Amino acid sequence: MPERIFNFSPGPAVLPQSVLEQAAKDIVNFNNKGMGLIEMSHRSKDFMAVLDEAEALIRELLAVPTNYKVLFLQGGASSQFFMVPMNLLGPGKKATYLNTGVWAGKAIKEAKAFGQVDVAYTGEPNRFKHVPTDDEYSVAADSEYLHLCSNNTIYGTRFPKFPDKGCMLISDMSSDIMSRPVDVSKFGIIYAGAQKNMGPAGVTIVIIREDLLDRCPATVPAMLKYKTHADKGSMYNTPPTFAIYCVGLVMRWLKEQGGLAAMERRNEEKAALVYQAIDATDFYRGHAEKECRSLMNISFNLPTAELEAKFIKEAAAVNLDGLKGHRDVGGCRASIYNAFPLEGVQKLVEFMAEFAKKNG
Amino acid sequence: MPERIFNFSPGPAVLPQSVLEQAAKDIVNFNNKGMGLIEMSHRSKDFMAVLDEAEALIRELLAVPTNYKVLFLQGGASSQFFMVPMNLLGPGKKATYLNTGVWAGKAIKEAKAFGQVDVAYTGEPNRFKHVPTDDEYSVAADSEYLHLCSNNTIYGTRFPKFPDKGCMLISDMSSDIMSRPVDVSKFGIIYAGAQKNMGPAGVTIVIIREDLLDRCPATVPAMLKYKTHADKGSMYNTPPTFAIYCVGLVMRWLKEQGGLAAMERRNEEKAALVYQAIDATDFYRGHAEKECRSLMNISFNLPTAELEAKFIKEAAAVNLDGLKGHRDVGGCRASIYNAFPLEGVQKLVEFMAEFAKKNG
Repeated sequence: MPERIFNFSPGPAVLPQSVLEQAAKDIVNFNNKGMGLIEMSHRSKDFMAVLDEAEALIRELLAVPTNYKVLFLQGGASSQFFMVPMNLLGPGKKATYLNTGVWAGKAIKEAKAFGQVDVAYTGEPNRFKHVPTDDEYSVAADSEYLHLCSNNTIYGTRFPKFPDKGCMLISDMSSDIMSRPVDVSKFGIIYAGAQKNMGPAGVTIVIIREDLLDRCPATVPAMLKYKTHADKGSMYNTPPTFAIYCVGLVMRWLKEQGGLAAMERRNEEKAALVYQAIDATDFYRGHAEKECRSLMNISFNLPTAELEAKFIKEAAAVNLDGLKGHRDVGGCRASIYNAFPLEGVQKLVEFMAEFAKKNG
Repeated sequence: MPERIFNFSPGPAVLPQSVLEQAAKDIVNFNNKGMGLIEMSHRSKDFMAVLDEAEALIRELLAVPTNYKVLFLQGGASSQFFMVPMNLLGPGKKATYLNTGVWAGKAIKEAKAFGQVDVAYTGEPNRFKHVPTDDEYSVAADSEYLHLCSNNTIYGTRFPKFPDKGCMLISDMSSDIMSRPVDVSKFGIIYAGAQKNMGPAGVTIVIIREDLLDRCPATVPAMLKYKTHADKGSMYNTPPTFAIYCVGLVMRWLKEQGGLAAMERRNEEKAALVYQAIDATDFYRGHAEKECRSLMNISFNLPTAELEAKFIKEAAAVNLDGLKGHRDVGGCRASIYNAFPLEGVQKLVEFMAEFAKKNG
């Protein structure tokens, strides 16, 4: 086994090597303080500085307006599926959801317990190959928000442009946050599990417009109110210190790479190489429609399930790991998040060409 | 600054040096797989083995009966404060709580939203110096459970014996789990944030009797039902992989140390040294009543607030760190969890004797 293999895992996913090496040092002896990062009180000056820097860098990279809070929560995006409607809906209130995949569907299911849910679009009939444009659905005027999943990890689709329907947006951005610049002011809430593009599993980033904090019914448990965490700077209870620390390191790395505009260019370049390889022959078929292809997750099929299994096995043998597709789509999937190196994409593309020649 | 200081932090807290060193290696290259632990898919064979081992060791060390599930959740004990009553109470149902400190009090506050809560004992009038014995309170026959906090981190008290009132126990054991053997069969649920005695912040261990899984109202969000996580082996959504991995390493270390009976002897020995130092002069005053002194957290006062500040400062200067008491008690607190070395306790005790001689 080599020092480092190319890891196409959909999440938890590849992180910058420099981040891993820094974390390895700080876990044993943080900043030469004589104790490890994960042993430090979350209320110590040292950890507070870690949390403050992580927040400041998220704000800087995403250009988060001053009337938004950045929260570090636990429980994954799956917990946001119910926290969003629990905080913002209630009897007689309505929200609109776009069903563009498994995770968007779970968000819809959880929301129904808290108010009226209009599913304005569903990609289910076409196996979620398509993400709607604004003219394909309407949003009721009394809808509290329009919920979408910006990038669909399983199907390899994304919203190339965010909806502009005169309704506050709320987005699960777990699999493409920090992969491109976003106009945060169009969103009431952006949330993302960190484990794809921001760090390790165990922390969820929530960016929330301040005026939404007061909408939560009083009966909701303290831990489930955004306001509780906003008022305490994500320190109402012990936060996941290691995960927050890693997010801070990844944000530093992103800044060194030139920020989100530079990342977007690199991501477009990397994804284009794989899509060109797919489109070059009839051997490979991309799952997503071309207009809504994801830059992060590329789902594709080969002529037969046997060839797909062979492809995945032979790729792993040359250190291209984690190319098996999700069970709902089958086939193959290459997840190439921010930290996935161009070199690995080039190696995949070469492998794809050779494999098609040999087996086509 | 030396290689390693003595860290009396109440949590996140000191971990075994060998655990930190192993984690540092695996973060960069797990088991020579060519990728770091935190980059690995939670559904990979490698991570599944990590999770399975952590669970198996918890079961072995605590002798968890086979009709209990061991879950790895997120959100800290603070999330259990509402999940317990949300899953087990409902209109017309009743539970009994013992108020032995700040955290027990928060559990009571959250439970009130889900059913009738009898507070059978409160230590508030005596500043939580005392933990009740069975003859000090009664539990109604129709109480679904009796909730207690086994060790009170802030006040430095514990239940030396668990209640025997003919009622199923539910306990927050965040600050003393794994510090002594426990008869799990007396409990319906045991829960604990890992960041004191089991690992880093970011994972909560829940040990739950299987027959309780079906009591949850259907309207509860999927992520908040114990059954959801039990049915999926804590993999309903992406679990906090790094924190679970560290818990596994700490469990390995505990087993190497001889298990919980051995740990209890060592904890008794360490705590006795500090309590002897407190009782040796009138200079120091322990906060807790002697009968319910904690082995994990030792809260004490000096004659004046000025002397306390001086004590904390001078102790830090000789690498005895984190001795400041919680704001609710003031004074000093030495948290000496499983991983806190005897050598550090001996050094504290020497320092206490010298400080009393100079300043008494």
